[in-house]
Order: sequence, then C-alpha cells, then structure tokens
Amino acid sequence: MTLADQPPAAALVFQTLLAQGPLTRAEAGRRTGLSAGAVTKATAPLLSDGWITELSTPAPKRPTGRPATLIAVRPERARFIGVKVTADELIGVLADLTAKPLVARRAALDSRDVDSVVLAIARLVERLRAAADAGHSGGTRGEDVHSIGVTISGDVDGQTGVVQYSPFLDWRRVSLARLVEAATGTPTVIENDVRALTVTEQWFGAGAGLDSFALITVGAGIGCGLSIGGRVVSGAHGVSGEVGHLPVGGGERTCTCGNTGCVEAVASTHAITDQARQATGNPELTMADAVRLAHSGDETVRAVFSRAGHALGLAIASVANLIGPERIIISGEGVATYDLFAEQIRETFAARAFGAAAECDLLLRPLPFEEWARGGAAVAAQRLFAPVR
Amino acid sequence: MTLADQPPAAALVFQTLLAQGPLTRAEAGRRTGLSAGAVTKATAPLLSDGWITELSTPAPKRPTGRPATLIAVRPERARFIGVKVTADELIGVLADLTAKPLVARRAALDSRDVDSVVLAIARLVERLRAAADAGHSGGTRGEDVHSIGVTISGDVDGQTGVVQYSPFLDWRRVSLARLVEAATGTPTVIENDVRALTVTEQWFGAGAGLDSFALITVGAGIGCGLSIGGRVVSGAHGVSGEVGHLPVGGGERTCTCGNTGCVEAVASTHAITDQARQATGNPELTMADAVRLAHSGDETVRAVFSRAGHALGLAIASVANLIGPERIIISGEGVATYDLFAEQIRETFAARAFGAAAECDLLLRPLPFEEWARGGAAVAAQRLFAPVR
Repeated sequence: MTLADQPPAAALVFQTLLAQGPLTRAEAGRRTGLSAGAVTKATAPLLSDGWITELSTPAPKRPTGRPATLIAVRPERARFIGVKVTADELIGVLADLTAKPLVARRAALDSRDVDSVVLAIARLVERLRAAADAGHSGGTRGEDVHSIGVTISGDVDGQTGVVQYSPFLDWRRVSLARLVEAATGTPTVIENDVRALTVTEQWFGAGAGLDSFALITVGAGIGCGLSIGGRVVSGAHGVSGEVGHLPVGGGERTCTCGNTGCVEAVASTHAITDQARQATGNPELTMADAVRLAHSGDETVRAVFSRAGHALGLAIASVANLIGPERIIISGEGVATYDLFAEQIRETFAARAFGAAAECDLLLRPLPFEEWARGGAAVAAQRLFAPVR
Repeated sequence: MTLADQPPAAALVFQTLLAQGPLTRAEAGRRTGLSAGAVTKATAPLLSDGWITELSTPAPKRPTGRPATLIAVRPERARFIGVKVTADELIGVLADLTAKPLVARRAALDSRDVDSVVLAIARLVERLRAAADAGHSGGTRGEDVHSIGVTISGDVDGQTGVVQYSPFLDWRRVSLARLVEAATGTPTVIENDVRALTVTEQWFGAGAGLDSFALITVGAGIGCGLSIGGRVVSGAHGVSGEVGHLPVGGGERTCTCGNTGCVEAVASTHAITDQARQATGNPELTMADAVRLAHSGDETVRAVFSRAGHALGLAIASVANLIGPERIIISGEGVATYDLFAEQIRETFAARAFGAAAECDLLLRPLPFEEWARGGAAVAAQRLFAPVR
C-alpha cells in the first residue's frame, strides 16, 4: 500500500501532520474536521505502513488520566531529490519527506543544450545517491529515492512536464521531466522555480498554516509565488506571479520583455548594476562595487537602490491590494543587499497599501540557493502526499 | 431537515447541480468524484425534502435500455432578497435559489445616515415581499424569504456583518447585518458589492465551471473580484481586488485615496468627466456630453477615453500576469461607453500580458444594476448551500 492509495481522510490527516504536527489524535480531528473515529480509522494504515509514528513521549496526561499520545510524520519514510537549474550550475539536494536536505551537491554547467543539461542532472543525481548511500546523509540507508523534482525559471508546465520557455537557457518546448526520467530511471516532476519555493514555504516554511501568502523573490529576476486557500496558484495558461513585469517602475528604462516601466527593469540585479554604471560613469562597475559604494554613502548609487526599493514597494503593495494575503515573504539572492532598499520598500508599501491591506505582514527571509533545490524535493514529495486532482 | 444539515457529499452534489445541472446521477458522480452509491445516498434526502427533483423528461435511453433520469435543483425551493446600496438609491430583487430575480424594485435614498438607510432597506424588503405575495413574481406563493443579502461598496466584513468603511456613505464600523436583521426580522448577510457580483458570476454567470476568473467593474470606481480554485478571494485583512489603486495610471493626477497614478484617477466616471472638462475648457461638461463629443470625433475628448482605456488595459494585464485567470470579465456601468476605450484596452493588454497570459479570455459583459442586487441574493443563497467553513 502506498500513500497515494489512501482515502481522502487519511491524506488530509497526513497533510495536517506534515505541516502542523506532531499532534494528538484529538487535535488532528479538530484541525481536519474529522470525528475521533474517522481519525483513528485514517491513522491505522498510515501507522502500519510506517508513514506516521506515535511519539514515545506522550503528551501531558489529561485530567481523566489517559495519556494523549502524539502522532507525527516519519520524515525518513521517503526520500526525494531536488535539483535547481540555473544559467551556469546545478544545485541538488537529497531530502526527506519534509524536504529537509540530507545531502547537498553542486555541479557547474558547461553547456546549456538540452542533452548536456540532462546528462549533468543525471550525474548529479548519481552523486547525491552515492553520498546518501555512503552515509553522508547522517541517516540510515534503506529507502530508495522515490522521485526527483527539477526546478527552473520560466514558463514551466508541471502537469505535462514540459518547459514551455526558459529565457536564460533559450529552451522552448523541452519535455524535461520525460528526459530526466529516462536518464535516471526515477520518476521525475518539474516546476517553475519560484512556484516550487512557494510549495516549500507553504508546507514547511514561513507559509505553513497560513490560508494565503505571497513570496516575492528579488535577484536576477523579480518573481512571485502565490498560495491562496492552501493551493499554490499556477495560472490557467501556465503564467502567474509575474510581478516583475508590473508596469510600475517608471517609463524610461526598457525591460528584457520589450516593455518599459517593469519592476525588473529597475530592481533586478542586472538593472541595479546597469543604473549604477550610468550614475557613476564607470562601465566596469560590478554589483559588488555598487553595494560597496552605497554602503560608503555614495548618494548617486544609493539613489539607484532607493529607486529599486520604491518599485519593489509598489509591486508588493499591488500584490497586497489585489490578493490580500496574510503575509508577504521577501526573499531571493537580492535580499543580501536588502538593507539598501528596505526602508524605501516599507515606506512605499505603507503609502500604497489600501486600507487594511497595510496590515499584511512583510517578512524578510534570506533563503540560500540550497533552499531553491529544496523546492524541487518539496514538489516531488507533494505529488506523493497531496496528489493533484 | 435543512440543507445546512446535509453531509458534505450531499452539499457537493447539490452545488454541482446548482452550477452545472441538470445532470444524470452518473454524470454527477463523475464530476464530484463520488461513487454511484454515494450519489444515490446523497440525493435521497435532497429529493424528499424538495431541494432537487427528477426531471419528467428522462435523458435518452442508454444502450442497456434503462433511461438515465436527469436530476436538477428546484429553484423555487427557497427565496432570497438582494439589496444593493448605492449613494442615492437602493436596488432590490426577490430571487429564487439560483439568484434569478422574480421581482425588482428601486427606492431613492434621501439620507445617508445609518438609521435612514436601514429603514429604507426594511421598507424595500416589505415591498418586495408584498409584490411576490401578490403574484407579481410569476411563481406560486408559499415559500417565505429565507434570508437577505445586502451589498455595498467599500471595506465590508462578510463574516462579522460589519461595514468597516464605506467611503461614499461615510460609514465606519456599522453592524449593518444586525441592524437590517432587527428591522426586517429576517436573517441577513452583507458583502462587498463587487465580491457579491463575483459570487453570482461564479455560480450562475460567466464564471460557472471555471477554476479561476476575475471580474473587473468599471464605473464610479474600478473594482475587481477574484475567484480562484472555486473560492472568491476575500483577503486576509478584508481587502482584495483593489485594482483601482494599482499605480499604473501615470503621475500627474491625484486619486481620492491621496496617491497619484491610480487607475481610478484616470478611468473612473468622475475622472473621465473631470479630464474631459479640462480638455474642453468647459467646467459644466457632463459624462453624457463627453461621450457625445467623443462619438462625434472630438480628438481631445477621445484622447481622455483612450488614456482611461490604457490604464484599464495595464490593470487587466497586471491581474492576468499575477493570477493567470482563465477569463477576465469586464463589466460595470462604464461598459455602456466601452466602445470608446475597448480598442485601447485590448491593445495595451496584448502589449503587457506576459507570455501565455495573453491567452486569457477577455469577456465584455454589460450587467445592469439589477445584477448587482442579484449579487446580494446570491451571497445569501450561498450561505445556505455552501456554508463558510
């Protein structure tokens, strides 16, 4: 028996334990709306098949005297591999059922053609398996890898496993899931990288237990993942969360998409570097130089970051006004320099959030690149514990 | 036994019949994911209590010879009253279970203070009941009104029944549901008017059967309702769909909210009239005059409509890029002059929709003000057939 064969009540209990456990059976019943009998019935096969366990330390005795045993997911019950594909390297993790990384490895990409990337992914997967088997995972051997999740930026159709368009790899209509599956012999799912990170945050991160949240990623691009009603929004046509192309950034700079005014055209890493070069008249300036100049008080470069912060604040306020999420998580490699635009983001957000939308919690959350690979493992795990209808 | 007491399976079958019926039991099973036995069990009490009926004309005989009977909701089984509150009048309908209006009445408001408006609502409710009892509804007498739904623009908390803030009535923290309930003796729910219209479209309109859609209303304000995964988004803090304050309208005009660049500041009825006055130098110009001038080819006034269309196109593209709905319905009293900005809306939308988001279906849908009142009836009915968790 596998988890996918379980009746809906069992899946619901398992998902609740995964995101909110350990819980007593009574509390699991309260949170799922199931009766005590239904919870007991649902947990029996999960226990016997090793998906959940009764914790040896019982919860405090109730007044009636019977100890209320805690039940919890067994993270070691299944393993997944997550791989994030960037323009020049692969980042991979072997993770448990809660997408907790047990082993992490990186691999440089020396070519962006499909066959080379697929081969590199297969080799990375082998290295992760080998490291895990050699005991580097800190856990015990035994469980084989259940499935692989590969994440990539761009227009990715998770349902069909096809990368419709990846701008930075210059791929169109690549059946990546099928290719990786053939190369590794392991079931593979793929997903847009920001949506995958949103899945991780939803189940195991700063979005767990929230009815709605948004994740804004700041870096080479400006991305956004949305979770509404417990579901990550994927868009009817495969596009969603394109906050980077909201036309709020002012008119004079042209975006990679060909339009003017996009948030990305003023707030991406490339855009900030480019504007800092113009502001200083130094065409060789790097992002690191720009950060150093801004920290040393250079007003023209500080203004570049401030302008980026203003565009990000407008974008974040737009998400709050449209969706009204409980929380907006701000992440991505750009948050390493967050101090340079944080004040402007908060100021602009406060000015533009409409009414009670200003109560939305803005949470800064630095997520290292391994977290992005974790997103792949979370998406693979989600297919197991929360199959798509 | 009432509908609210039914088990989840019965509620699911009933909701499916409401939005997609009539169906055979087999088809209802397929669409709900329930077994044949579960559908039969779920429909039995619904049939005996008169919520659904077997249609007298059976579906075509199947090859095996047994006719597949169609089952359908009985719209006459329950009645609801919907009231839309505007700045100067009330619009009311008495409607059936599918929010179909049986009687419609209007009443002028001569004061905006809370007591006067509540009294006027109670009188309108009485007139609607009387008209229905006098047989003006075209139906039979008998069923009393189950509940009332009142809709109003602004920050409305449907859960607690409190109007947090209504700008045009200048109300703050008014327990409107409780007050109307006391004045009419009938259970009352309230909702933001655009969200209520979205509920109507979701169950009985151009959103029925769609996994996601947005409704943009153009008129005195620019509103937006979102339905994602079968749920109308209400916002964690009561604010959502505030597309009117997206900062995409250009810098020079100040919005009623105090900011510049809001869509509403260039595309609301008031904003268009105001800009047309400036363009023509005629401070007495009305919206009707502006429409006439534009239709007669006045380029300066046409440019005002074109600019409004551009801002609306940016807003609609922003919704498509962020949420990725299957369809965006464009409605509101402003669509009466839609021909004056339609071309600009479509042009801007096409330029700014990101990738496959351009495939989103834009649907123009003139909805008369009675439809807004229908929204109240739909929200009241929804509380009966789809109780909020």
